Amino acid sequence: MKSKILYFALIWVVSLTFTKSFAQIIPVKETVITGLKRPWSMVFITKNDVLLTEKEGNLLRINLQSKRKTIIKGFPSDLVDSLDVNYGKGNNSGIFEVVIDPNFSINQYLYLSYAAQTPNEGTTTKIIRATIKNDSLTQIKTLLIASPFTKQNHHYGGGLKFGSDQKLYITIGERLFYEIDEPATPIAQDPTDKRGKIYRINPDGSIPNDNPNFGKNAVAGLYALGIRAAQGMAIHPETGDIWFSEHGTIQGDEINILKAGANYGWPLVTSGQYRSKDYNPPKVDVSTLTSPVWFWRQTVAPTGLAFYTGKEFPAWRNNLFVPGLSGGSLWRFKLENEKVKSVEQLFVDEPVRLRKVVQSPDGKLYLLTDELDGKIIRIKKP
Amino acid sequence: MKSKILYFALIWVVSLTFTKSFAQIIPVKETVITGLKRPWSMVFITKNDVLLTEKEGNLLRINLQSKRKTIIKGFPSDLVDSLDVNYGKGNNSGIFEVVIDPNFSINQYLYLSYAAQTPNEGTTTKIIRATIKNDSLTQIKTLLIASPFTKQNHHYGGGLKFGSDQKLYITIGERLFYEIDEPATPIAQDPTDKRGKIYRINPDGSIPNDNPNFGKNAVAGLYALGIRAAQGMAIHPETGDIWFSEHGTIQGDEINILKAGANYGWPLVTSGQYRSKDYNPPKVDVSTLTSPVWFWRQTVAPTGLAFYTGKEFPAWRNNLFVPGLSGGSLWRFKLENEKVKSVEQLFVDEPVRLRKVVQSPDGKLYLLTDELDGKIIRIKKP
Repeated sequence: MKSKILYFALIWVVSLTFTKSFAQIIPVKETVITGLKRPWSMVFITKNDVLLTEKEGNLLRINLQSKRKTIIKGFPSDLVDSLDVNYGKGNNSGIFEVVIDPNFSINQYLYLSYAAQTPNEGTTTKIIRATIKNDSLTQIKTLLIASPFTKQNHHYGGGLKFGSDQKLYITIGERLFYEIDEPATPIAQDPTDKRGKIYRINPDGSIPNDNPNFGKNAVAGLYALGIRAAQGMAIHPETGDIWFSEHGTIQGDEINILKAGANYGWPLVTSGQYRSKDYNPPKVDVSTLTSPVWFWRQTVAPTGLAFYTGKEFPAWRNNLFVPGLSGGSLWRFKLENEKVKSVEQLFVDEPVRLRKVVQSPDGKLYLLTDELDGKIIRIKKP
Repeated sequence: MKSKILYFALIWVVSLTFTKSFAQIIPVKETVITGLKRPWSMVFITKNDVLLTEKEGNLLRINLQSKRKTIIKGFPSDLVDSLDVNYGKGNNSGIFEVVIDPNFSINQYLYLSYAAQTPNEGTTTKIIRATIKNDSLTQIKTLLIASPFTKQNHHYGGGLKFGSDQKLYITIGERLFYEIDEPATPIAQDPTDKRGKIYRINPDGSIPNDNPNFGKNAVAGLYALGIRAAQGMAIHPETGDIWFSEHGTIQGDEINILKAGANYGWPLVTSGQYRSKDYNPPKVDVSTLTSPVWFWRQTVAPTGLAFYTGKEFPAWRNNLFVPGLSGGSLWRFKLENEKVKSVEQLFVDEPVRLRKVVQSPDGKLYLLTDELDGKIIRIKKP
């Protein structure tokens, strides 16, 4: 009898293996939440509760089961969202990233980036730390202001990520749209200018002692330079390295690995084309620059990327997922150490502007859509 | 005892399932044969013997185990290969496709396409049927000459495929390089011009009675029009449809499904850009045109495609594989009926110009590289 049961169990597992498990699996999308105003970032604070930023709205707490949304009040009043008429069309401003402290369960700290304005001066990227009490932000502390405030509407950056070293990493964009507007020392190449950089700071805003040295006039917290418009960062599950996405101009979208003191080359070199056709960057020894791990030969506008470590799709384990605003696909990267082996463009028949990939603590994969009626979408088996 | 064996068998299958089979598999390349002069096409005639065409060389028989190559003599003397100085650089001519008759084991017929020349007139695509005797082509019969002979060096087409209806399908390119050279009725749109078309003929060269009707002046065997530069064709393993690749100009590379009487639109419309920037095609009701299943937003130069039905990579079953000359990647398409669900770019870190994907009768997947030292490469598990 026991042998009979085991025999059938064996047959069942074998048939399962060769029919279901081995066969091609085409993932599907399930809409979990709708009605979000261009969601930008999401972080799980319990199994079912997330904090979510809307680029054109609010910081929200959402329960993914009850679908109840709660606006977190008390956001700093210098926030300038994308709808502000003063800053015109194509405005990239708003609330950007939300992440929680590695010790969130103890200190309840969260970290936010957003576009802040100073009347008559313009806008810039601002990073704050805060806690939530009675559905309101409190204990707000400013960690970084990427001054100068300018009238440019683009490329705030605003990516936030805690490294495996418990330091907070921050991407700040260069804020220019045309290369022709670059000063003699391009903004992203100037260590005394806060823009076009990646930062590494302590969670309280102080500067770690072991940051790379960019000279005595370098801005505080500087970790890497030569950045045009980076947003997303993700921690490689095996190496602990930070991988980040960067927007190119006309093509030239890239995936890079963050290294201390690295120069990613903008605008001295580009894997795409300059917007200003006759722009002549200063000459440079390219051996001093760090090349991307990957660049696309088409425009993708890659944003909030994530490594997948869940169990639902075993073949995807440790793959890098990159959402695209332009074209609206999800890109899956198979890697071997720091080398890209293959790149899959998923959901090509269901294009929608994608801002962010988020994995839940229990390993589910979610997407945020950059739409006026923005959505949280879960990726699952059919 | 029996129960114990079954128990361990169960454990083994389960562990195999969850460790090996489920995990990410990164395929590798194994070079099987080298020293080929830009191989274009390959067909298995026994388990280990293939016939192979070299664009800049010969028709060969190769044993993949002994690696012995035999030149098949007696190729028609009007062959013009890519090296012919009269036709200059960027010459696409040479020997193209080789396929065998569905009843090859009985009649030993093979079918070949190649660039043929007529002195002082120029070149065109020619399709012949023949058999091999004493390592020499014999019983050569001409099935199609895609006249006129012209001095243009490009886009011969030359794709050959037997459909599930036992008819021979043939792709013939438009032969122009610049759209500005189009006549008032563009070549590929003119049913009285042999170029820029897809044909369907009987294996003896006669015309099937049930071909679509393109009017009484249409060229014999015409099956579809509006083709710029199609080469590869493959039979969908479930539907029996023929899928074919087509080269665009600047981008605009496509995958199409062949349908009787269809107009694929060239040069009236394109998913890329025209080479002649100021080309104004005749106006047309686009609803009469058949859209591609897929087009790339980057240049790929897709050629000899194949559906995979082997057992080595179960997750790839019934996927479409498309090799690219430009960029040198292999592209894998996951499909749901006639819809592309996802597209994977494989071997991105090992680029090499790829002309053809071929599956052996026992389900192994091979690639032909378009190199002066061309190779047969097998794709296998690491």
